Amino acid sequence: MISDKRAIQDITQLLYAKGVYHVIITPGSRNAPFSISFFENRNFDVHSVVDERSAAFIALGLAQQSDKPVALICTSGTAALNFSPAIAEAYYQEIPLIVITADRPMEWVDQGEGQTINQSGVFRNFVRSSYDIIQDLNDKDFEWYNARVMNEAIDKAMHPVRGPIHLNFPLRESLYKTIDAPLEEVKVIERVERSIQLEPETVKELAREISLKKKVMILVGQFHTEHYTLSKLEEWAKLPNVVVFTESHSGLESPLFVGCIDRMIMTVTQEQLEFIRPDLVIGIGKNIISRKIKGLLRSNRVEHWYVGEDALLMDTFQRLKKIVPVAADYFFEAIGSQLCVPDSDYNRTIMAWNATKQQLAIQYAEHAKFSDLTVCKEVLKAIPDNSRVQMGNSSIARYIQLFDRNSSLRFSGNRGVSGIDGCTSTAVGAAYVYEGLTTLITGDLSFLYDSNAFWNEFVTDRLKIIIVNNGGGGIFRIIEGPPSTQALEKFFETSHQRNGSYLAQEFKLAYFSASNEEDLKIGLDKLFASLGCSILEVFTPRMANDEVLRDFFDFIKENS
Amino acid sequence: MISDKRAIQDITQLLYAKGVYHVIITPGSRNAPFSISFFENRNFDVHSVVDERSAAFIALGLAQQSDKPVALICTSGTAALNFSPAIAEAYYQEIPLIVITADRPMEWVDQGEGQTINQSGVFRNFVRSSYDIIQDLNDKDFEWYNARVMNEAIDKAMHPVRGPIHLNFPLRESLYKTIDAPLEEVKVIERVERSIQLEPETVKELAREISLKKKVMILVGQFHTEHYTLSKLEEWAKLPNVVVFTESHSGLESPLFVGCIDRMIMTVTQEQLEFIRPDLVIGIGKNIISRKIKGLLRSNRVEHWYVGEDALLMDTFQRLKKIVPVAADYFFEAIGSQLCVPDSDYNRTIMAWNATKQQLAIQYAEHAKFSDLTVCKEVLKAIPDNSRVQMGNSSIARYIQLFDRNSSLRFSGNRGVSGIDGCTSTAVGAAYVYEGLTTLITGDLSFLYDSNAFWNEFVTDRLKIIIVNNGGGGIFRIIEGPPSTQALEKFFETSHQRNGSYLAQEFKLAYFSASNEEDLKIGLDKLFASLGCSILEVFTPRMANDEVLRDFFDFIKENS
Repeated sequence: MISDKRAIQDITQLLYAKGVYHVIITPGSRNAPFSISFFENRNFDVHSVVDERSAAFIALGLAQQSDKPVALICTSGTAALNFSPAIAEAYYQEIPLIVITADRPMEWVDQGEGQTINQSGVFRNFVRSSYDIIQDLNDKDFEWYNARVMNEAIDKAMHPVRGPIHLNFPLRESLYKTIDAPLEEVKVIERVERSIQLEPETVKELAREISLKKKVMILVGQFHTEHYTLSKLEEWAKLPNVVVFTESHSGLESPLFVGCIDRMIMTVTQEQLEFIRPDLVIGIGKNIISRKIKGLLRSNRVEHWYVGEDALLMDTFQRLKKIVPVAADYFFEAIGSQLCVPDSDYNRTIMAWNATKQQLAIQYAEHAKFSDLTVCKEVLKAIPDNSRVQMGNSSIARYIQLFDRNSSLRFSGNRGVSGIDGCTSTAVGAAYVYEGLTTLITGDLSFLYDSNAFWNEFVTDRLKIIIVNNGGGGIFRIIEGPPSTQALEKFFETSHQRNGSYLAQEFKLAYFSASNEEDLKIGLDKLFASLGCSILEVFTPRMANDEVLRDFFDFIKENS
Repeated sequence: MISDKRAIQDITQLLYAKGVYHVIITPGSRNAPFSISFFENRNFDVHSVVDERSAAFIALGLAQQSDKPVALICTSGTAALNFSPAIAEAYYQEIPLIVITADRPMEWVDQGEGQTINQSGVFRNFVRSSYDIIQDLNDKDFEWYNARVMNEAIDKAMHPVRGPIHLNFPLRESLYKTIDAPLEEVKVIERVERSIQLEPETVKELAREISLKKKVMILVGQFHTEHYTLSKLEEWAKLPNVVVFTESHSGLESPLFVGCIDRMIMTVTQEQLEFIRPDLVIGIGKNIISRKIKGLLRSNRVEHWYVGEDALLMDTFQRLKKIVPVAADYFFEAIGSQLCVPDSDYNRTIMAWNATKQQLAIQYAEHAKFSDLTVCKEVLKAIPDNSRVQMGNSSIARYIQLFDRNSSLRFSGNRGVSGIDGCTSTAVGAAYVYEGLTTLITGDLSFLYDSNAFWNEFVTDRLKIIIVNNGGGGIFRIIEGPPSTQALEKFFETSHQRNGSYLAQEFKLAYFSASNEEDLKIGLDKLFASLGCSILEVFTPRMANDEVLRDFFDFIKENS
């Protein structure tokens, strides 16, 4: 059974032909032709989610972990606008989302009809492209146009750089008429795979330039890892003039890398900092969590090459000199074989510092006051091997980067725009597609914000949630802050007395809590032993967290 | 204490000078200069709300009931996007909102910085105007520009038609520096009051045209009532060739009007319907809830005049012939005195039908099965005099129009776009500014959707909430529907087992429930006798509601 509308038949066929499997449809009547058409179509996994904001973040999670485009369909009006935060996050995180909005026919916009706004290009600031589908196919060219832009749209979600696209479907009544099968086969324009390489002379030239540098830093931010990048990068990490700095959401963990950037940079002397500052930074991946490394690299001494397909010209350190628009694994292989490495103590020195600081961090944390920092350390230790981890935004994402991470884990987080608005929903979607365990580590504000995250069919037993409840936005006590304590509490930290137990109760999730070391350990055991999706809420002292963090850096600095 | 940034000093002074009192600031660091500047400023009532979506709907409620612009301020990134649904609703409901977004300086957009998106014009599809403020005042013209557009923006929220405007403030660090008082007084451009009138010949001509019509319908949709409109309109409602049809959110209630449009139109014969169809419809106000009246008026026989300032040329019935861009009260007074009314039985006949149907509706409801319909009748009876009522969207808004309403009540609802996304938050804001009681009547989906509505300081004891829980989107059983029952339940109705008790418990609101007539009466007594903000949840039979509604219309039709 499928809608009698040709455009709906076309998009349904095309989504299947182009490998889309997950479809989320939010309730409504204008999008009825979609609901009817997808409802019994076994080619797709289709679910309904009521809150569109949450729905879109779930779609983001599905797409992030499956690395396939996910279709997200809503009715007309403000429904579409509720998708916006997740679409913007997908844009900057480079996640493929096919956003489909049902609309009134254009001639009825602004005429006082219900659930009608001007939807044309409404996401234009944060999608790869927007398209308006033609409703009335009274010319053969219109059929051609529709099929063509649908092909283009789905392709653009993946190529050349992943991201969200928007298809707006004006639909005239009747919305509920169906036929047994599509009347015509849609035109599928295939997209042949290609390989992107550099000219041999370019490879030679780049290798030569790198070979001249005494200090080369490879810095990996948020990254869609291909497995083979790791081993390639490990080869580079053995070169005397190279160090590899990786962030948690790079997906690249190795004892040969510096995985705790802030722990390194915050605990060295000014002289050592100058030593760390590279001649050349080779950046791969997207957003960087560490502000300190950005500060270090924004210096005249540094030259920055960006390796990867670039949707936006992102000159993060204001020192961008070269864009090398090829895949990272190709780059490291092709260039690596031609390097002629100079003598340098860059790698040896920094990795020695790193080893010392790693020990000191553990040593400090063992005796530190119960706080966000010690909780994050314990949590990282407790997460089972081969899990995936979703990081909530703000302070959590920063604490996670202070301790060495189990290399079998893969970390993700909404660091494209770093909003606190959809971290739980993203984790719900992510856990649904990953066959192993997914652990969300989130702050209290972020968790409470996304309070409709469990109102859907995606919640799986494989999702475990740890709320680090420091009674407000802890981040504001660790960054440069406001002058008045009252203003801090009201407008920045947003201190509160809430907790996650009510949501757990409502959605029948097991709930454990802890407010000291011992209960935390018991709580973590229970959490990971529990059969269903469950929550461990850890209460940390709001007023002590920033102090512990400062002491942590001081201790390492003084003793290294 | 105020931020050291000139633009912040200017807007703070201007908002005060132009009569803005309510300010909502959502947490964040980029908007710190605002938080710091408003925090101790006694000229404003300033509150923090964490969930930006809810915050914006609260602002909408504040502005709707105070009829003054409300300032709504957020940090950069997806925070702003969460404002979108309420801004779109404000645009179509004509509610004055001053939306202020803090932003990174333009040169840092798309450079991998946290919480940064392209905010310039991001709401352009649904605001009156968008402005980018200049950060660096290195030219005198820039100061002039900033002050000028701030004046324009605040004025545009009110004149000539109320609506939302957007001011985007790029702000460079440091964000926390303050001084004692503004360095310079901002330039305030005053806006003198004016009166808008018609030429005497026009008045004469319009009066002449109306006097030639045997059947004139005055139809009032959503309307910002001025009190004197009612008595003017009541004079017109006594004319033989005129009937006044009003909807719940017109704010105009009188025994001389037909206030239950669907009850009239759904229960007449085809012949009677033809009689009701006017020669001329004079429309005032905005969105119309009744689909039936729209259908009736979309006929070649009808001529439509729109009276009021028009931001959009809204030809709701496709019969728009004349726009009379003056205030309704002026129109009815000026034209009314010059009418030379023809003989007609239009008024007498329709008002007689209306009286009969009014009796029959009560008669039916007295013996009807407990359902959405009987609940709405009881609730309307129980709401104390001089209250304000907020209507949730979908079926609730339609049921409310079936029974005559207490004329001391004032009804509002988010009928601009008719989304279900922020009805509770809007009610929270509305109740905060109205000194009497405010009752929200909402559906279950709408209530559960807006689950962060109580997470703020605006929740007042004067707010009473009635949830009509029919286990899903009841609207889909009363409008033209989907072919399969399973599809209906999953993608349209979204049937569920949830209720509002958990939210009540979490936010410490008294909670009562009822699932039969008797308990409903007791529940309503308790609700209105309770001291705090409290909730009465009424469970109605999901499968029976549509049947009762159909029987209601059948009964009236057969017996009138």
